[in-house]
Amino acid sequence: MFQDFEDLAPKGDTAARVTALRAAIAENGVQAFLVPHSDEHQNEFLPAHAERLHWLTGFSGSAGTAIVAEDKAVLFVDGRYTLQARAQVDTALFEILQVPGHRPSHWIAEHLNEGDAVGYDVNLHTVNEIARLSKTLEESGITLKPLGANPIDTLWTDRPAPPAGPAYPHGIAFSGKTAAEKIAEVQESLTHAKADALLVTMLDSVAWLFNIRGSDIKHLPVVIASAIVPVEGRPTLFIDPSKLGDNVRGALADTVEFLPPAELDARLEALGTQKAKVKLDPSTTPARFENTLKDAGAEVLHRTDPCVAAKAVKTEAEIAGARAAHLRDGAAVVRFLAWLDETAESGEIDEVQAAGKLESFRADTGELKEISFDSISAAGPNGAVVHYRPMAATARKLEPESLYLIDSGAQYEDGTTDITRTVAIGQPTPEMRRHYTLVLKGHIAVSKARFPEKTRGQDLDPLARLPLWQAGLDYDHGTGHGVGSFLSVHEGPQRLSRTGSVELKPGMILSNEPGYYREGEYGIRIENLILVTEPEAIEGGEREMMGFETLTLAPYNFRLVEPMLLNSEELAWLNAYHARVRETLEPLLDEAAKSWLAKATAALQ
Amino acid sequence: MFQDFEDLAPKGDTAARVTALRAAIAENGVQAFLVPHSDEHQNEFLPAHAERLHWLTGFSGSAGTAIVAEDKAVLFVDGRYTLQARAQVDTALFEILQVPGHRPSHWIAEHLNEGDAVGYDVNLHTVNEIARLSKTLEESGITLKPLGANPIDTLWTDRPAPPAGPAYPHGIAFSGKTAAEKIAEVQESLTHAKADALLVTMLDSVAWLFNIRGSDIKHLPVVIASAIVPVEGRPTLFIDPSKLGDNVRGALADTVEFLPPAELDARLEALGTQKAKVKLDPSTTPARFENTLKDAGAEVLHRTDPCVAAKAVKTEAEIAGARAAHLRDGAAVVRFLAWLDETAESGEIDEVQAAGKLESFRADTGELKEISFDSISAAGPNGAVVHYRPMAATARKLEPESLYLIDSGAQYEDGTTDITRTVAIGQPTPEMRRHYTLVLKGHIAVSKARFPEKTRGQDLDPLARLPLWQAGLDYDHGTGHGVGSFLSVHEGPQRLSRTGSVELKPGMILSNEPGYYREGEYGIRIENLILVTEPEAIEGGEREMMGFETLTLAPYNFRLVEPMLLNSEELAWLNAYHARVRETLEPLLDEAAKSWLAKATAALQ
Repeated sequence: MFQDFEDLAPKGDTAARVTALRAAIAENGVQAFLVPHSDEHQNEFLPAHAERLHWLTGFSGSAGTAIVAEDKAVLFVDGRYTLQARAQVDTALFEILQVPGHRPSHWIAEHLNEGDAVGYDVNLHTVNEIARLSKTLEESGITLKPLGANPIDTLWTDRPAPPAGPAYPHGIAFSGKTAAEKIAEVQESLTHAKADALLVTMLDSVAWLFNIRGSDIKHLPVVIASAIVPVEGRPTLFIDPSKLGDNVRGALADTVEFLPPAELDARLEALGTQKAKVKLDPSTTPARFENTLKDAGAEVLHRTDPCVAAKAVKTEAEIAGARAAHLRDGAAVVRFLAWLDETAESGEIDEVQAAGKLESFRADTGELKEISFDSISAAGPNGAVVHYRPMAATARKLEPESLYLIDSGAQYEDGTTDITRTVAIGQPTPEMRRHYTLVLKGHIAVSKARFPEKTRGQDLDPLARLPLWQAGLDYDHGTGHGVGSFLSVHEGPQRLSRTGSVELKPGMILSNEPGYYREGEYGIRIENLILVTEPEAIEGGEREMMGFETLTLAPYNFRLVEPMLLNSEELAWLNAYHARVRETLEPLLDEAAKSWLAKATAALQ
Repeated sequence: MFQDFEDLAPKGDTAARVTALRAAIAENGVQAFLVPHSDEHQNEFLPAHAERLHWLTGFSGSAGTAIVAEDKAVLFVDGRYTLQARAQVDTALFEILQVPGHRPSHWIAEHLNEGDAVGYDVNLHTVNEIARLSKTLEESGITLKPLGANPIDTLWTDRPAPPAGPAYPHGIAFSGKTAAEKIAEVQESLTHAKADALLVTMLDSVAWLFNIRGSDIKHLPVVIASAIVPVEGRPTLFIDPSKLGDNVRGALADTVEFLPPAELDARLEALGTQKAKVKLDPSTTPARFENTLKDAGAEVLHRTDPCVAAKAVKTEAEIAGARAAHLRDGAAVVRFLAWLDETAESGEIDEVQAAGKLESFRADTGELKEISFDSISAAGPNGAVVHYRPMAATARKLEPESLYLIDSGAQYEDGTTDITRTVAIGQPTPEMRRHYTLVLKGHIAVSKARFPEKTRGQDLDPLARLPLWQAGLDYDHGTGHGVGSFLSVHEGPQRLSRTGSVELKPGMILSNEPGYYREGEYGIRIENLILVTEPEAIEGGEREMMGFETLTLAPYNFRLVEPMLLNSEELAWLNAYHARVRETLEPLLDEAAKSWLAKATAALQ
């Protein structure tokens, strides 16, 4: 079982930890210390040894920052986590404040004095973060001071060991492009930028560039490593030798030099000695590396990590893999939906059991490497909590005349999936059907949109919202995010949202997931992954248009679709999609699931 | 007749003028001289005495820049004007180059030498323009040099006098807000920005702020003037005293100090002496004023002209005026369309006659102060030339089985109109009907859109394009521009386009004008003006939504609408609009026009 339904409850005496940290802060000659949630690689999910914020505060959410000062301490979290933080954290020790209404920089300016210094761990904050914070604090005469070592790492005596999973090659059949080819493309971008070398610290960039995968991070099949790519010659991959077997060494023998992570600093200093121009991404690279480079004499170029745009456009092999992964995943989801349709009306199934069942159907495929994130398995009013995660202790039962929302995904070696379906348990109300169908109309509008080159995600986001807007409704999240290829389920740079200013390119994969949330009652979200298609001619047209191929294969909920609210084009799209789902999945299903699918995908009119 | 159908043909010996200018350039110690189309107020339409570019080159288009160097000269125009420039300009004197493929800065860098200087008239270039150009030329070691006087003004012996039209008050019944109130709001913005004064040079800003109008600029009812607004006390309006009658003096007696334009420099210098902080808009203010202020010791703050955002949101009185203006204008347009329907099939009417006829129907209202721009009256293939303007010598006849496009507008004291209708002369082809209906679908999608606060024009622009995109078609212009209130027909900051990043606010007026252009055959554009409405509740909804009230009242072309291509919602919108057009305009029409309108607005299904 990849999903863990136990709450990461606070363990140990956080009061004593805060007291010990305060002593360490004083020894370091600073008046406060920053404790972010992030680790050295700015991961979305953290390995256990990097859970410093949880160790100190008891807070287990996926985003937050604590500041411990001499006589006060504060924890900043966003709106998703305010309640959870209050439940997990000793509020006598930490004041809980919500961003963006409150801000760490303002808190520091208010609670510290001119001349004070705030300590931070240079490994955990990006170049941009430190630059922004320094600038804001400058006005108040407060400085930021990098500490030689993180005092928490000294105080945390029972700290888990870093993950030691082995790296393994991601074969050409999956990647469609050799590491050597990818490296050559990156080197071309370095030549173009007149840079001597590139520093890569994001784990999914490293995994993509060298065609390797691992299991160091929950839900993200990567290995902890960094790299320097010189403008000419072999790149160096900084990775624990214990993670390297003959398979990776063999696959990359002629392409890459391997060094232990501890050698990275010396190599950065050597670049400084050569007065090299080194490119790094200031939005993701820890401040430490910039400091090391500059102190040693290097010139630092701030540019977006070139792997980000490159890996967003999938190769033919990755696209074929995505199709195969979605076929396999679709069959598992259909088995789950058929099971749910049969059993949920009993009122005996709870959110945790349902999520577990879906994971077991995926495991049955024999290809499941991980789930791509903790399933949001949300019954009734929990569906309106956008980032809900079920816990064993508080799991809600699926009850008749309610909605059940499940947002989940799988990591297969040939592709990453992400799908949300909302299901009526028993008979839905007319209101539920109306809301579901309005969300579906927006989802279909994106699915069948045709658009010219240079179209940006922000140009299509309103299509998903318009049917809701016309009805006085909306949702407070983006419509879609990029998705990796056996990599991160949340990947940039493209997105379908108000801020999605990146142009869509053929080969990009995005989610299409409009929703509607009725607080205290139910949540509706419908999500497929879609692939941007090549521009092609349209009969009777003059300009070639791009479009989307829907990758996800699973029926919408026939109890919730109100055909009267769909126009003929929407109905035609829906029926064609359902026919495709039925035809492609049937060969993978047993008779019972097949017969359920036939009912679930029957043509509507 | 406000529209002039005679081409502004080159007059005089441009070769001699260029030779004389070259001598003057040499005397000024520079190696080249910039001749932009613009005047001191960055007007879209120029008064005759400011047509320096035309005087020098013979080119009469509305945008362009010439550069005269010692032994070569060049004229930069955009794609609209390449053919026209080649026809009007002696290409032995001027090379014609098209922007943005070619650029003045690159031309200068290529054709001049390090150490050379380029002269320019500081009155005709904005602060931003000069800053950008200086920066680009710096790399080539070429400098820009402001000349004391424009040599053309000395050489141009038969130069027309500046326009001498009187200013007149724009009453509170039209403006809905007194000049004193507007000035107080501007002064509040100055307090907020910690500025001591604001310099206003845009003529429509001056007209709006002081509630005055005039007739100095073709199609734009403004008077030539500038203003300084101090953070406290009375603003100074710099205006030729001969333009001021007792009406304006009386209306603004307690509010404003009047000074002749020649006093502006002394006042700017006085602000310098006081070390004042002076706000100006660098994108529209001539470089001269910034230089004068800085040389005298003032601090200059670069900010958007505060009148721009303020005048974009119309007052209740302006909205009522817009409705009245569109009712009046709609009746004139219907009389025209009825006349056209009756006569055009004869093949005897040409583009100039048609435009003249429409202007005469507008003049019949007794309220026409000006047309808001030269009508684009385009028969057959001319409709595909987006900025077409008919000329008497080359006017094309309206012929059976063709399309006719007319884009026109009126300036009434209560409002500015802008409408485009495309009409089938005789029987259209099925292809024409399909294209027209696809454009209409996009136009309707914008018209009936509901959207939340913070929605930007760029969020709605794709709605107008989607039906065309789905068919492999598109158009290469924005979907809509802002419109003034008895002011400029093209007004910012809001627009419906890919670059429309300004949020829409209730009270803004925009055009809604998607199109389709089939080169060499026909052009289709459908344009109404629309008013952004207040957020309001929608039955069954939760969030208040804004929307659009369509101001323009005139039928679409019943011969061109293909009802089979409209869905039931689009058809319902169209029929409701047509019913509204019929009911509101009928009382203003004679029996013949009324009976035509009944036919033109008959419900479709």
